Amino acid sequence: MIDLLEIKDPSFIKNMSIKELKELAGQIREFLVDTISKTGGHLSSNLGVVEITIAMYYVFDPEKDKFLFDVGHQSYVHKILTGRAKDFSHLRQYGGMSGYIRREESKYDVWESGHSSTTISAMAGMLLASEDKDEKVISLIGDSSIMNGVAFEGMNFLGSQKKLAPIVILNDNKMGISKSVGALSKAFSRLRGTRLWRGFKRVLNFIFPTFITNWFHQVKRGVKAFIQQDNIFEDLGFDYYGPIKGNDLRACIKALQRVKKNTEPVLLHVITKKGKGYAPSELDEEGSFHGVSPFDKNTGKSLKVPSINEHSYSDLVTHYLTKKREDEPFFVVTPAMKAGSKLEKFANSYPDDFYDVGIAEEHAADMAAGIALQNKRVVLLYYSTFSQRAFDEILNDIARQNLPVIIGIDRAGVVGEDGSTHQGIYDIAMFGLMPNVKIAMPKDAEELIGIFNYAFTESSPFVIRYPRGNVITDLDFLNNKIMISPSWEYLKTGHKKCVISYGPDLLRIQKIIERENLDCSIVNARYIRPLDIKLLEHILSNHKKIIIIEQVTVRGSLYQDIVLYAYQNKHKTKIESISFEENISISHGKIEDVLDHYGMSNEDIINKIRVD
Amino acid sequence: MIDLLEIKDPSFIKNMSIKELKELAGQIREFLVDTISKTGGHLSSNLGVVEITIAMYYVFDPEKDKFLFDVGHQSYVHKILTGRAKDFSHLRQYGGMSGYIRREESKYDVWESGHSSTTISAMAGMLLASEDKDEKVISLIGDSSIMNGVAFEGMNFLGSQKKLAPIVILNDNKMGISKSVGALSKAFSRLRGTRLWRGFKRVLNFIFPTFITNWFHQVKRGVKAFIQQDNIFEDLGFDYYGPIKGNDLRACIKALQRVKKNTEPVLLHVITKKGKGYAPSELDEEGSFHGVSPFDKNTGKSLKVPSINEHSYSDLVTHYLTKKREDEPFFVVTPAMKAGSKLEKFANSYPDDFYDVGIAEEHAADMAAGIALQNKRVVLLYYSTFSQRAFDEILNDIARQNLPVIIGIDRAGVVGEDGSTHQGIYDIAMFGLMPNVKIAMPKDAEELIGIFNYAFTESSPFVIRYPRGNVITDLDFLNNKIMISPSWEYLKTGHKKCVISYGPDLLRIQKIIERENLDCSIVNARYIRPLDIKLLEHILSNHKKIIIIEQVTVRGSLYQDIVLYAYQNKHKTKIESISFEENISISHGKIEDVLDHYGMSNEDIINKIRVD
Repeated sequence: MIDLLEIKDPSFIKNMSIKELKELAGQIREFLVDTISKTGGHLSSNLGVVEITIAMYYVFDPEKDKFLFDVGHQSYVHKILTGRAKDFSHLRQYGGMSGYIRREESKYDVWESGHSSTTISAMAGMLLASEDKDEKVISLIGDSSIMNGVAFEGMNFLGSQKKLAPIVILNDNKMGISKSVGALSKAFSRLRGTRLWRGFKRVLNFIFPTFITNWFHQVKRGVKAFIQQDNIFEDLGFDYYGPIKGNDLRACIKALQRVKKNTEPVLLHVITKKGKGYAPSELDEEGSFHGVSPFDKNTGKSLKVPSINEHSYSDLVTHYLTKKREDEPFFVVTPAMKAGSKLEKFANSYPDDFYDVGIAEEHAADMAAGIALQNKRVVLLYYSTFSQRAFDEILNDIARQNLPVIIGIDRAGVVGEDGSTHQGIYDIAMFGLMPNVKIAMPKDAEELIGIFNYAFTESSPFVIRYPRGNVITDLDFLNNKIMISPSWEYLKTGHKKCVISYGPDLLRIQKIIERENLDCSIVNARYIRPLDIKLLEHILSNHKKIIIIEQVTVRGSLYQDIVLYAYQNKHKTKIESISFEENISISHGKIEDVLDHYGMSNEDIINKIRVD
Repeated sequence: MIDLLEIKDPSFIKNMSIKELKELAGQIREFLVDTISKTGGHLSSNLGVVEITIAMYYVFDPEKDKFLFDVGHQSYVHKILTGRAKDFSHLRQYGGMSGYIRREESKYDVWESGHSSTTISAMAGMLLASEDKDEKVISLIGDSSIMNGVAFEGMNFLGSQKKLAPIVILNDNKMGISKSVGALSKAFSRLRGTRLWRGFKRVLNFIFPTFITNWFHQVKRGVKAFIQQDNIFEDLGFDYYGPIKGNDLRACIKALQRVKKNTEPVLLHVITKKGKGYAPSELDEEGSFHGVSPFDKNTGKSLKVPSINEHSYSDLVTHYLTKKREDEPFFVVTPAMKAGSKLEKFANSYPDDFYDVGIAEEHAADMAAGIALQNKRVVLLYYSTFSQRAFDEILNDIARQNLPVIIGIDRAGVVGEDGSTHQGIYDIAMFGLMPNVKIAMPKDAEELIGIFNYAFTESSPFVIRYPRGNVITDLDFLNNKIMISPSWEYLKTGHKKCVISYGPDLLRIQKIIERENLDCSIVNARYIRPLDIKLLEHILSNHKKIIIIEQVTVRGSLYQDIVLYAYQNKHKTKIESISFEENISISHGKIEDVLDHYGMSNEDIINKIRVD
């Protein structure tokens, strides 16, 4: 037994026996359940990769070789083995350890993935540019991530570079975040289930007359069982090994020792059990134990008991869409965010209209464009940060063609514990530069449906953003037929000073201002684009100072648009911005801690308003 | 014989005999060579698809079914058959017919691709949303395009939707724009060459003892020849037909009649000869006949004789990089732009440092990030419009990680004949919103190397843009060791008014101003980010009016940054912008025609300067 908290570096593993390594695996698993039950974090994915990660450290040389963790939410075991067990008490907290790979945290952290499927291409670059030809680069990538376009591009490239010997470990837990989708996931099942016959497909070879084809099929049926070996990875130029039992430590070590000797691209297919070793997460098919808040480790129940009528914005959107669907037909398309964006209710009610396409953000956008071109309504749902991957398709195929796609942007603004790779702070600038796109952010549940209702009447692309976080509301508002067209409103009128913001953060700001009894106007700029010129003109003409508060990067913000208008219309009102500076990346931590640190705290706002 | 110019709609094809269809193919081929030799345009790709396009119209019902042309540069035959032969005299000219698919041009144009590999996902959306379950949707896609990530995501989705029956025609000409790359292109060769044994791979099955594995290999070798049928498309859930001879009209018709009956996803693999039927383009391996300017159809020689010392900016960059490589090592990475960006010289001189990764923009960015993380210098080259597809990777993996990647952006600004899907007008806004990124655009050859030289000393991401178009220069400047750090300069000082611009368009502007003898300053804002605050302060303090001229969308432009600075520093200088309005898409046509039409002509500039 070693003390996980005393680990300095991973060298100790080399001297352990298989028996000791197995004990280590048990210890790590216990440690993970124990600490994550207190702090929250990614649980299932880490429980699944305990053995394969230990085997990586046992077989390879972490001082020379590079381990890339695709996405990185399965890197906790790696963090423990590289001396960071003690930091788990502050996991994902501001100033504490990141839940993802972070280069400044450890020399063993070499690739900050965050967004999925990038490790294959990164390893290609690392191998090409390596000065040590013995240096091994290993990517641990999930079965959902490997189905994304960029991973495919990376595999296709590496498969053609026979002088390099990348090692891809396909961590196949049949899950992704929730269950994986797509044709390949079926192909994986076949590889998984048996090395033998993987489903006879009726492919007529029409060069030959029918009787020959038929005879061929007989032959095939008989012998294919013995020879089936080719699969998509081989077509991509990789040697394929596996599948092996990824929660069997001995099997993992043996397999890695083999693939280590490979002098050409190789993929090792490892079957793991997501949530392995902890019953509540082993049984979870919906992804509830993918990212968890603190829970009771005996029961698996969340310690955070939601208040009655407490809803996330994702949840409200789902309720809205499910209700709206009673009135008119439309499709909902999302890339792998069924669980994350709480879309199960809609999916279960209207399975024929709901498409979770897996981690395929680009495909989702073009599929939505195709739907719109058939004159059908479609709602396309992304996390803010992941919508970045569909930038070209949304710009060129949706916005340039001016198609009426409603784009819901979940987790807009500061996302909290996920940190720098996941911040939703670029979407306003990104959609703002595209032609024809309206951008709105409702401040509460009622405004949410008012804006959605309006969006459903529009014939142009329409972005509706909403943040992470919860709101207390009953669901009666769903019956409201309110419709909010592009316009701003005063929430409060005061003298000299005016605060402009949008989204639920407005309510926090309003509360501060009321508490401090500050004399200033408050404007709800629920449409970030287009501007409400009439109201803006009124604001500029009747105030000496305007403060625009936004959880976005200052570049491409509403603030910039307002300044442009003010300058061109010869206003002299002082205009200030509370937003994120342009050249920083925003750390992980509780949302309020992050706002504190980056100059957006309650105090910061009060001070900015008080000063003339 | 029918008169191509008299075609009203494609219905006439249905009544033709095979013999007549073959004559039609010959006529079309002659027409294409004849007209494109006069106007320029995409030649080889269209010559290759004459038979398969005719067969599509013969077999399917264009009044009900939808034809999607991936990228669209191979849609000329489709244009002829749908009544647009007469418009070829104004092909790609302002107000004339587009060289790509354009919905406003014809009801038979249903998907404006432009950027590659989007048709698969678009067809998925169209099929899902189709009200006519007999409606067939067919995508004609090239072998390079199908290797892009978004096409893969689309195939993976469609392969899992057995209720839909998409028809993908893989137009395999072994070329892409120049020769295709990547592992799959090798896999295609195997499919192509023979239906039989496609290369024996030594894949040890390490579950079994060696002697059994060896015995297996014997068995495999013997029987595999008879049964090989599985390939990547089958893994993706598509029935695979082919390969067939795509320039054999009868074979095309027969094959399409078969796949039309398919009730599940199907891919027809068609081998065509790019440039078929016109000797100079048949022999072209470098892609010179992919997009051509007017040429002598008897010799194949371009009519546009370049002046001595006339170079495109792409060409200058290649010369620069090839020279620079003598002094220090670095990698060059580009997605399929080897020919387009004239990189052959570098590629031939330093084959080990040059990677054309095919149409894989995202992969290219992450591979460059991987190279940079090994402390190696890398130059990543895109066309402006195609860099959009790597937005997320450049933002998250290069800019957020602050890696010293030099990003060359070719065809920045108005691109001319390619039109709305290819304009390079968003990159400044796009890179401008990312952290840590500098953006520069040199006005001439000397400045180009000065900025590149400086970029090579930087430790942050660095974007250098350059336009389509040529410049007269000898190559002596390459010996210059000039280095230009972030700064602006006055090219001319005048009174009251000041014009600010960047890039080679400055030279046009300077010429106009000198010719008209206008009293105004001219500033070369060769760094778009960061601003040269000191010089900007001087400009604002010493002029009454500033005009910023940019070939970009106004949103996220330099103009917006200058206004922001001016407002916050209480300047009252009038600031105007000559750029593109936010909600338009910019048509095809000669660059000067396009500038004329969108308010950026010489006259527009003169008028704007003259007015107070």
